[in-house]
Amino acid sequence: MITTSRLQTLLNQQGNETPVHAIVRALSSDGSLSMAELQGATSLAKSTVSTALSELRRSGIVVAAEQREKESGVPGRRPTAFTLNPEAGTCVGVHLELDGVRICIADAAHTIIDEQFIALGLDYAPEHAIQSTLTGAAALYRNNGLTLERLLGVGVSVSGPVTPQGFVHKSSILPAWSGTNVRELFANAFRKPVFADNESNCAATAELMWGAAKDHKDFLLFKIDLGVGGAVVIDGKVIVGAAGGAGEIGHMSIERNGRLCRCGNRGCLEIEASLLEPTRQLSEVHGRPLVIEDVLLLAEQGDSGANRMIEDCAEAAGRGLAAMAAMINPPLVILSGKAALAGERFLRPFQQAFERNALVRSRDVPTENATIIRIGDFTLNDSLLGAVGLVLRSIGSMKTQHMHAL
Amino acid sequence: MITTSRLQTLLNQQGNETPVHAIVRALSSDGSLSMAELQGATSLAKSTVSTALSELRRSGIVVAAEQREKESGVPGRRPTAFTLNPEAGTCVGVHLELDGVRICIADAAHTIIDEQFIALGLDYAPEHAIQSTLTGAAALYRNNGLTLERLLGVGVSVSGPVTPQGFVHKSSILPAWSGTNVRELFANAFRKPVFADNESNCAATAELMWGAAKDHKDFLLFKIDLGVGGAVVIDGKVIVGAAGGAGEIGHMSIERNGRLCRCGNRGCLEIEASLLEPTRQLSEVHGRPLVIEDVLLLAEQGDSGANRMIEDCAEAAGRGLAAMAAMINPPLVILSGKAALAGERFLRPFQQAFERNALVRSRDVPTENATIIRIGDFTLNDSLLGAVGLVLRSIGSMKTQHMHAL
Repeated sequence: MITTSRLQTLLNQQGNETPVHAIVRALSSDGSLSMAELQGATSLAKSTVSTALSELRRSGIVVAAEQREKESGVPGRRPTAFTLNPEAGTCVGVHLELDGVRICIADAAHTIIDEQFIALGLDYAPEHAIQSTLTGAAALYRNNGLTLERLLGVGVSVSGPVTPQGFVHKSSILPAWSGTNVRELFANAFRKPVFADNESNCAATAELMWGAAKDHKDFLLFKIDLGVGGAVVIDGKVIVGAAGGAGEIGHMSIERNGRLCRCGNRGCLEIEASLLEPTRQLSEVHGRPLVIEDVLLLAEQGDSGANRMIEDCAEAAGRGLAAMAAMINPPLVILSGKAALAGERFLRPFQQAFERNALVRSRDVPTENATIIRIGDFTLNDSLLGAVGLVLRSIGSMKTQHMHAL
Repeated sequence: MITTSRLQTLLNQQGNETPVHAIVRALSSDGSLSMAELQGATSLAKSTVSTALSELRRSGIVVAAEQREKESGVPGRRPTAFTLNPEAGTCVGVHLELDGVRICIADAAHTIIDEQFIALGLDYAPEHAIQSTLTGAAALYRNNGLTLERLLGVGVSVSGPVTPQGFVHKSSILPAWSGTNVRELFANAFRKPVFADNESNCAATAELMWGAAKDHKDFLLFKIDLGVGGAVVIDGKVIVGAAGGAGEIGHMSIERNGRLCRCGNRGCLEIEASLLEPTRQLSEVHGRPLVIEDVLLLAEQGDSGANRMIEDCAEAAGRGLAAMAAMINPPLVILSGKAALAGERFLRPFQQAFERNALVRSRDVPTENATIIRIGDFTLNDSLLGAVGLVLRSIGSMKTQHMHAL
């Protein structure tokens, strides 16, 4: 049986990259790849890939992928493809939610093995969350006949800006975490490499690795729930920014003297484009407390107020998108969050408002230069999947400096 | 004497990159580098750099840089540094301005040799501009005892969005160029590789190669003249966007029902942040037609109206910058264009408005995570310098596919 330490030794080896390294790196980033795809990903000759692959299969590091049914949102594998041996290592994904932590474990072959939500109540303390995550992860491993020894790393998705070093500066949703170093806290508990990013950035990582952006290097993720978030991906990398504040598109002010936002500014996109105001106003009109799902259901049932409110949000979102497009002119925009559940009901007015307000209008440019807007593949669990993705994507670059960075 | 063809052969050679290639690539991108800097840029051992450098100096491709005075805005060389042999090749930079073309020639060692403006009147035809550029460049070469045989490539700076392929979709300043392929047109005339980009993107390239962003990989260029433009640089690359529309920050709408903009949208940042309105209104108040320079002079002389108008523009620009920062949270912002000539008079209210409206405020984060705002090094000729930079930066990657791309 292949051990985690053998894979780690291979990954941490310094010096020139051999074909064996290149193949391990490609598989750790992409999950499963066919011979032809491996040639493309490594830019190596067919014979070189073939020789190195034989060596890797002999030593049990790489295995032929079985055809399986889709599991936990991660697409099923294709036939005649290869993956890292799932027994070679695992990783833990953590999503710090409003009232608890969601944990999952996945193997090196990109399969989600198990998942669990641990309720902690509002404003939970970091220590509490970390202890619960450790206990919860240990239980998930035990229940699946695995041990934490095989853990390659932990990925954490945070509802707020995180610097690349793991510092949480300010978090309106998780105030107790402000000023902490989330990578350091988890690394102290797990004694393994820890990666952390904002939840929308994690969502973008998931779409990039397995979802709607799989074949793209540049896109904008636009996430609309009770709040509005996003991520900017350039050349295959999620932009983090000087202080981890990149992608906070909900806090672009699009109305100088607009209403006060929770961030302290006025006229933020979030105020007009989030589903908070529809939920509030419809609750008022219907005389009972509604949640987003109720609003979506009402709209589907033909309630004209619900439809109007969704259209108005979509219109504001499209206008905001046009402002963003003036800056980065993205080839692809992925709509995520619960607004995506409204499908065409949201997408149509969103696209129309974008087209009306954009500097580069689709009708003025050849099709290949137009911005495509589509709904993401992992609307509801993209942040957790992306947390796992942070680790899997990093396996290939987990050189010694990263292993000891924290 | 070293010939251009020898350098071109070296640059176009396919296959594995040798230390010789790596050094030529680093020098073509950075201009002049010391031994220590060459080691850093190539990640090669000192002895390897030393051996390859000796070989390159023996064959006359690389020379020791002389200490010279500053020329044409390109910073003077440092002692004990090396450059590509200036005689190894030259390039032409072209800036398509409102009423004519500005041309310069530079050598492979990053020295601007000569410069010329050819007046063509408003709305000049592309054919006219290209013929004038060819004639003008030939004259510049002749006057400096050079021949066009040594031409490595041509860089063109355009006042409007340009796709990476060179297609000009829409240009409010140069309507006659809409729908043309600027790379193709110039390549047909010059029979050499042609690179083209938007003028603000070119400005960013100049600041990145030689100026205020020399030690940075991520920044936002914010150009304020009669119009407002910009460029987004991520990981050392200027973002172009799906249709060449990236960096068109003047056309982000920051006021839903704001005034109509020349782009067809309402409330664009350009309307409030450009120096057009101050110039217009001060002309009215003073009863004579003023240009930007008059407004700046009036402000310096203490005219309260001029100072107020500049402050208002700076305030709007700072607000717009805060919206952009919510998206990319840039570590560095470079102010360019004639607004930069106002110095602190513009910079102070610009910074204050940014700090007031930004999601990530400087006072909330450690100094190393704060956004730095500074004035560019090449405020007035950055676009032309950047056009040259497009060619110089590409020398290292001018592989065969590029040479024959057009």
